Amino acid sequence: MKETQLSGDVHSFDRAIALERISARLVQGRTQPEWANMIGPFGGITAATMLNAALTHPDRIGEPVSLTVNFAAAIAEGQFEIEARAARTNRSTQHWIVELTQQGEVAATATAVFGARRQTWGDTEAQPINAAHPEELVPTEYTDVIWARQYDKRFIEGPIPTDGLDRPTSTSTLWIRDLAGRRLDYPGLAALSDAFYPRIFLRRGGFKPCGTVSLTTHFHADPSQLAVIGDDFVLCTAHANRFANSYFDQSARLWSRSGDLLATSHQTVYFKA
Amino acid sequence: MKETQLSGDVHSFDRAIALERISARLVQGRTQPEWANMIGPFGGITAATMLNAALTHPDRIGEPVSLTVNFAAAIAEGQFEIEARAARTNRSTQHWIVELTQQGEVAATATAVFGARRQTWGDTEAQPINAAHPEELVPTEYTDVIWARQYDKRFIEGPIPTDGLDRPTSTSTLWIRDLAGRRLDYPGLAALSDAFYPRIFLRRGGFKPCGTVSLTTHFHADPSQLAVIGDDFVLCTAHANRFANSYFDQSARLWSRSGDLLATSHQTVYFKA
Repeated sequence: MKETQLSGDVHSFDRAIALERISARLVQGRTQPEWANMIGPFGGITAATMLNAALTHPDRIGEPVSLTVNFAAAIAEGQFEIEARAARTNRSTQHWIVELTQQGEVAATATAVFGARRQTWGDTEAQPINAAHPEELVPTEYTDVIWARQYDKRFIEGPIPTDGLDRPTSTSTLWIRDLAGRRLDYPGLAALSDAFYPRIFLRRGGFKPCGTVSLTTHFHADPSQLAVIGDDFVLCTAHANRFANSYFDQSARLWSRSGDLLATSHQTVYFKA
Repeated sequence: MKETQLSGDVHSFDRAIALERISARLVQGRTQPEWANMIGPFGGITAATMLNAALTHPDRIGEPVSLTVNFAAAIAEGQFEIEARAARTNRSTQHWIVELTQQGEVAATATAVFGARRQTWGDTEAQPINAAHPEELVPTEYTDVIWARQYDKRFIEGPIPTDGLDRPTSTSTLWIRDLAGRRLDYPGLAALSDAFYPRIFLRRGGFKPCGTVSLTTHFHADPSQLAVIGDDFVLCTAHANRFANSYFDQSARLWSRSGDLLATSHQTVYFKA
């Protein structure tokens, strides 16, 4: 996509995931200041951008089914290149390998599976969360992380602690929506699956050095379900299973207001504590 | 590894994951009849083999932290080639891209993160399962799947149904160990994370056409914990979150007898039902 097409009132999310083809092999993007994390961009925006490299590729078939993004290095402010390659295309599924580089050095890798969805028997076995409506809750301000200012976040449980006290559980549940009214799509869902602050903060009562190393999202929503959500709140819940020897995992579920499980997501995070 | 080194009483698992370097870029392996699934080999043995390509690479640093394997096509009986490439090597982490090909066509892709583990604060938040000891349970025979005959499987809940009746939940919990006494290691753990029969069988009461498209495992165990387990049983539990429009997900936990959470694993599966 040419930069000229992105001027004016284009949402910063769309600027951040926008890619311009610079060769048969590569597209180019640019980090956006609105999506900065403490070091480099928010992992969710990187995941969305790498997914978008496959999604906007002329060879793409089907819709996202799963995405794994591995964060190999901090991404520096400025330009980056992405190579998205369809490693295998079947009749109704497609397998992508995606690499993000800066100055020729790999900063993130990803794989994605795309597929055609057909109507089948279905059931949601995960228990929906009986949460207060977002309208009854107060928005939370994260003042020290720029990307989080792009979302309206309303916690039901597990807000960021600042008291330095250990807690026995790592569950956070919150409603999130894009503050500027961007409608939910697959890149938006990929970003939301990483929109939790690190679980180690909750367990240890405050900031600890850490960074996601691998993020996997399984998409359950089809395009028509996403269309119905529009820019409405999504109910997001996450917890950790085990913290041990420099790494912990996090499992998350993303629900629509009407009780559709939109995605399940799992990550492993490096930490010091 | 040369075939001559693998003669005699080498375990079929080690034969199945064995790789011989045939060029600077490629290693070669061969499917083993003991690990056959209904179509192609057991996904767990493919995951173990792709992990092993990184694990045995001369450039490898650290231990497995996470692994994602995407199953792109059925693997035919016989030889296959694997390219494992260290896309990025940092001081204490390393990021791998792995591709398995047959006749030059990609049949599976993978990414893996390896890392150095250092002693940190730790806690297991997932609730251990209060299960009967394996010695009190009866081994289950899967008569129609060859690979499953390599494991001693003792179900606590959710054995394969054959009555054609729908069930409300998809949880299976069972003790598993290698029948021939192979000691647990990271490839063994990668294979066990896929050792559940498909959750759709349990919900719908019998066989349905399906196949895993993407499998992610987050490794929590360090080498010393694996060494203590040896060839003992591992307590494995799995459930699905949502079945919808051709795909369902499965989340699994693998526990040691002494209550260590060894790995968490998540997959998405194509199905018809």
